[in-house]
Amino acid sequence: MALPKILVLGAGYGGLMTTVGLQKELNQQEAEVTLVNLNSYHHVTTKLHEPAAGTLPSEYAKVDIDSVLDRNKVRFIQDKVTQVDPDKKEVQLDGGETLSYDYLVFGLGSAPETFGIKGLLDHAYFIRNLNGARLIREHMEKAFAEYNTLEEKRDDLLTIVIGGAGFTGIEYVGELVDRLPELCREFDIPREKVRLVNVEAAPTVLPGFDKELVDYAVKYLEERGVEFRISTPIEECTPEGVILKGGEKIDAATVVWTGGVRGNPLLEEAGIETARGRVKVDEYLRAPGYEDFFVVGDSSLIFNEEERPYPPTAQMATQQGQYLSKNLVAKLRGGSMQPFSFDLKGTLASLGRGSAIGIAFGKKFFGGKASFLKRVNDWRWFYLIGGLSLMFKKAKF
Amino acid sequence: MALPKILVLGAGYGGLMTTVGLQKELNQQEAEVTLVNLNSYHHVTTKLHEPAAGTLPSEYAKVDIDSVLDRNKVRFIQDKVTQVDPDKKEVQLDGGETLSYDYLVFGLGSAPETFGIKGLLDHAYFIRNLNGARLIREHMEKAFAEYNTLEEKRDDLLTIVIGGAGFTGIEYVGELVDRLPELCREFDIPREKVRLVNVEAAPTVLPGFDKELVDYAVKYLEERGVEFRISTPIEECTPEGVILKGGEKIDAATVVWTGGVRGNPLLEEAGIETARGRVKVDEYLRAPGYEDFFVVGDSSLIFNEEERPYPPTAQMATQQGQYLSKNLVAKLRGGSMQPFSFDLKGTLASLGRGSAIGIAFGKKFFGGKASFLKRVNDWRWFYLIGGLSLMFKKAKF
Repeated sequence: MALPKILVLGAGYGGLMTTVGLQKELNQQEAEVTLVNLNSYHHVTTKLHEPAAGTLPSEYAKVDIDSVLDRNKVRFIQDKVTQVDPDKKEVQLDGGETLSYDYLVFGLGSAPETFGIKGLLDHAYFIRNLNGARLIREHMEKAFAEYNTLEEKRDDLLTIVIGGAGFTGIEYVGELVDRLPELCREFDIPREKVRLVNVEAAPTVLPGFDKELVDYAVKYLEERGVEFRISTPIEECTPEGVILKGGEKIDAATVVWTGGVRGNPLLEEAGIETARGRVKVDEYLRAPGYEDFFVVGDSSLIFNEEERPYPPTAQMATQQGQYLSKNLVAKLRGGSMQPFSFDLKGTLASLGRGSAIGIAFGKKFFGGKASFLKRVNDWRWFYLIGGLSLMFKKAKF
Repeated sequence: MALPKILVLGAGYGGLMTTVGLQKELNQQEAEVTLVNLNSYHHVTTKLHEPAAGTLPSEYAKVDIDSVLDRNKVRFIQDKVTQVDPDKKEVQLDGGETLSYDYLVFGLGSAPETFGIKGLLDHAYFIRNLNGARLIREHMEKAFAEYNTLEEKRDDLLTIVIGGAGFTGIEYVGELVDRLPELCREFDIPREKVRLVNVEAAPTVLPGFDKELVDYAVKYLEERGVEFRISTPIEECTPEGVILKGGEKIDAATVVWTGGVRGNPLLEEAGIETARGRVKVDEYLRAPGYEDFFVVGDSSLIFNEEERPYPPTAQMATQQGQYLSKNLVAKLRGGSMQPFSFDLKGTLASLGRGSAIGIAFGKKFFGGKASFLKRVNDWRWFYLIGGLSLMFKKAKF
C-alpha cells in the first residue's frame, strides 16, 4: 500500500515548522513527506532588514535546509513552484516535475502589495527575501561610493526613501540609523548629507500599535535624523525617486517599499477564493472547499474575536506550523483534528541594534529590555527548528 | 621682506614627502609653505587594490592630511588645481583662488593611459584613487548581489576582467582571489561560477620582472582559478564586457583597467615638454627651462644608466620628496643643490594577503617572506610621514 503523501510548499516559518514537526513525530512507515523550496536555505524573514541595511552578514539571516532536515524522513526538492492544482491534487515545478499529494501544506509566502502605486514594481526595492535584501544593501552602498566620484555632487545618491512605516519599515529604518556612521566613515560622506525619509499613508507609524510605544519609536528615530511623512501616500515611484501626495518630490537613488503584502498569486491562479490574495482558512487552516489543502503563513487569513484579520507574522506562521504538524499526525493515525487558535504572545519591533519597543507578557517594553526580548525571540526560532546547536550557531549574542 | 613661497601641488608620495620634509627642517621665518590637495586625505596608492577588492576598509588606505601637517608651518588648501602657469608663476584653483609661488613642486599624479582602446574610459573602472577603488568594489558586489535575484542567470555578473598584468593588475587579482570565498559565501554563489580574467598585451605578466618570480606569481594565481590572456591586447571595451584581439568576446559586468599611466595633463596644458604626459626632469627634478618648477612622482620621467625610464613608483616618488625637501632647504639657506639619484631598494608585488614576490637586498623573495617585507614597506611609509604613532594606527599587523 502506498504511503500517504504530504507535500509542503515553502520553507518559511509555516512550512518549515510543519516539516520539522512531522519529521519529529512520524516514522518512515507512516507517510512520505516532501518539502519544496526555491532556495537551499530558509531565510529568517524577521531579520531581513539587517542584511538589507548591512548590519548583519546574511549567514545569520538564513538556515541551510539540509542542517535541519532528516533526509531519511523528508525528501527535499529545491525548485520553484509554478502551479498548484487542488482538484487534480498536483503541483507543477519549474524544473518540469509534477508532484501529487494527499495533503498539501501551502506556505509559499506573500507578494508585495503596491496599492496600485505607479512605478513601484519597476523602481523600488523590496525586503522580501535574502536576495532582495542584499541587493538593497549593495545598491545603497554603490550609490554612496559613487557620490564622491562625481564632480557635480548628486545628493539623491545619499537619500533613502522607505515606503511604509509598519514593522518592516520601522525596523529597517532603525538598522539604517545604526549603519550610517560606518557608511559615512567608509565613504568619506558627512552624516548630515544623508537623508532617511520614511513615508506612510496611514495617520501614524506602526498603525494599530500602542500609542505610547509609537511615540517612543518616532522620538527615538527622529532624534537620529529620520524624517517622517505621515498621512502621506506615495503617488508615484520614478527612476529619480518618489512623488508624494500633495506634490512633494523626493529625489532618491534608493527607494525601499515595505508597505504591505498580499497573498501568493498561485492561490488565485488555482481558482481558490482569496481576499487580496490571501485565503480565509477554516478552523483547521484549510482552504474553503478542500479537505486536504492547508494554507499557512502570509497567504492565510485568520480573524480575531472582533472579526479583524490578524496581521501576517512569523509568530502566526510558526504556531500554524506547530499546530498543523500535530494535527496531520493525528489524522494519519486515525485521530480527529483539533481547531487552530492563535495565542498572541507579544509583539516586538526593533529600532536598531540596541533598542526596541513592544508588548510581551501583557506589559509594555522599551529600549534595551525590549531589544533583549526581541533577540531571545530570534533565538527561540532557531531553537524550534534546529535545537540548541543551531541556536548557538546562528545567534549573535 | 616677503618670505619665499613654496607651493606643493598634490599630497601623494612625492608632494606629501616634500611637505613633511620642509615642515621638519624649516622654521616659520624661512618660507611660506602651502600644500594643495583635492581631498582632505592622502591615499596610499600602493594599497588601493585592497579597498578595490574589499579586503581592507578604506581607512587603512588613507591618511588625514591634518594628522601629519603642522598647520603653524604649512597652509593646507583642499581644492582642485585647474591650471598651472610656469611663466607667470601662478596656479589656478577650482574654487577661484590664484596662488603665486617662488618654487613649485608639481606632484599631481598621473592620468590613465588607455593606448587608444575604444570604450575604455566610458565602460571600465580605474584603480586611481580611493573613490574609484571603492566604487569598483561596490559595483562588483552589487553585480554579485544581483545574480541570484534574476530568473535568467547572467554569468557576466560574476565575471571580472582585469586589463593589464603589471603591478597593480597582479596585486588586484591577488586580492580578488582572497576575497572571492567570502563574496561567494555572502551571496550564495558557487565559486566555480566566478571568472577572473587577466588580459595583458605584453608577452608576459609583470613585464620586465624576473622570470622566476613571474612564473611563481602565474602559477600561484592560476592554481586559484585566475585565467590569463597574455600577448592579447583588448580591442574594445563595451557596456557588455571586452573584445580581445583575435575576436574573443568576454561578457563581464566588471572591467578594471590597470594597463598604465601617463603624466598629468596640466603639464602639457602649461606648455611644458612631455613624453606621454610625463616630464623628463633634469638632475634637480626641474622641468626643462625652469629654475623653480619641480616635478615629482608619476608625472616625472627619469632614466636609468641604460637610458631606460624608471617606472613610476611610490619608492621613486618618496625618494624624490625626501631629496627635494632637503635641496629646497639648502637653496633657501644659500647653499647649493645636489643632483638627485635614485636608489632602487627593491621591488615587491603582493599576491593577496599571505603571499608576494619580489626582489630586495639583491635577493629574490617568494610567498610569506615577501609578503612580510611588503607589509614592512607599507609601515615604513606611515612612519616616514607620521612617525610611530601613525604607523601603529594604520598598520594592520
